[in-house]
Amino acid sequence: MTLEELKALVRTVPDFPAPGILFRDLTTLISDGEGFAETVRALSERAEAADSELIAGIEARGFIFGAAVAARLRLPFLPVRKPGKLPVPTIGIDYALEYGRDRLEIDPDRVRDGQRATIVDDLIATGGTALAAAELLRLAGAAVSHALFVIDLPDLFGAERLRGAGITVEALMDFHGH
Amino acid sequence: MTLEELKALVRTVPDFPAPGILFRDLTTLISDGEGFAETVRALSERAEAADSELIAGIEARGFIFGAAVAARLRLPFLPVRKPGKLPVPTIGIDYALEYGRDRLEIDPDRVRDGQRATIVDDLIATGGTALAAAELLRLAGAAVSHALFVIDLPDLFGAERLRGAGITVEALMDFHGH
Repeated sequence: MTLEELKALVRTVPDFPAPGILFRDLTTLISDGEGFAETVRALSERAEAADSELIAGIEARGFIFGAAVAARLRLPFLPVRKPGKLPVPTIGIDYALEYGRDRLEIDPDRVRDGQRATIVDDLIATGGTALAAAELLRLAGAAVSHALFVIDLPDLFGAERLRGAGITVEALMDFHGH
Repeated sequence: MTLEELKALVRTVPDFPAPGILFRDLTTLISDGEGFAETVRALSERAEAADSELIAGIEARGFIFGAAVAARLRLPFLPVRKPGKLPVPTIGIDYALEYGRDRLEIDPDRVRDGQRATIVDDLIATGGTALAAAELLRLAGAAVSHALFVIDLPDLFGAERLRGAGITVEALMDFHGH
């Protein structure tokens, strides 16, 4: 299956979550067994080339891709969670969204000092969430050198923001217009 | 890696999310690369034996295990989501929690009539969430015959409730006391 064929499995929904936004929906891709497996294979290949020691997935859609990559590569998976979900003392980071603020939390004891971590998420838009996840992982001692996405929306410059923070960004496909 | 060794990777946190509750935390298991991969392998073996055509994972921790199983078996993955997350018209089900109510939603177009679906989640306690997911999948036309969990808390009788709804339940390990 080619990346063009994978891209054709993505559904575009206009005006979600707000008027004027074209939402790129991966529900259709993951409900295609071959398409989902091929997406996970392609992400895993890149995580392996990055010499990752830890895969961090961002709640909730990042869990779908990140955990599958981690299991395939027999690597630890670290869930980067929404607040209040973890049963142990956490470290957290607050960050700005387009509308309002949000927070991410991790269990810092699940990260070794200097461990090479790769962030996996479904989509990068402005990059705010991924950048917050990277800062949080670095706070816990990880070396965050790579971030992998299924979709990049290059018009929103999120990949550039991450590169500015020293992170190599790869995405399987991109969509213009948003 | 034996199931006993996997079980030793689960962390028990007292008094979360409420006093008197022993929370069985899988964060420690999934942050062990071999442990997580072996857990996914063991779940996948059971999903394959059940002749599953679709893996449904319940947001959010069910995504971690369910998506990894689906990718391994090259099967479609259906996310059973919290309300308001899907960008398309959904069908939903409200159900009772120990404290309060909650709701699950799916995109019904991702399910074929009569498709053999297996539910995957991290843990079964009273079974309320899994039972609601099964009802919702059946409403969309799926044949839900199996549900797989990493952990069963048999003292809470969730597996019995699911069996009463005609669902075969398997868990990799159980913990008594809650």
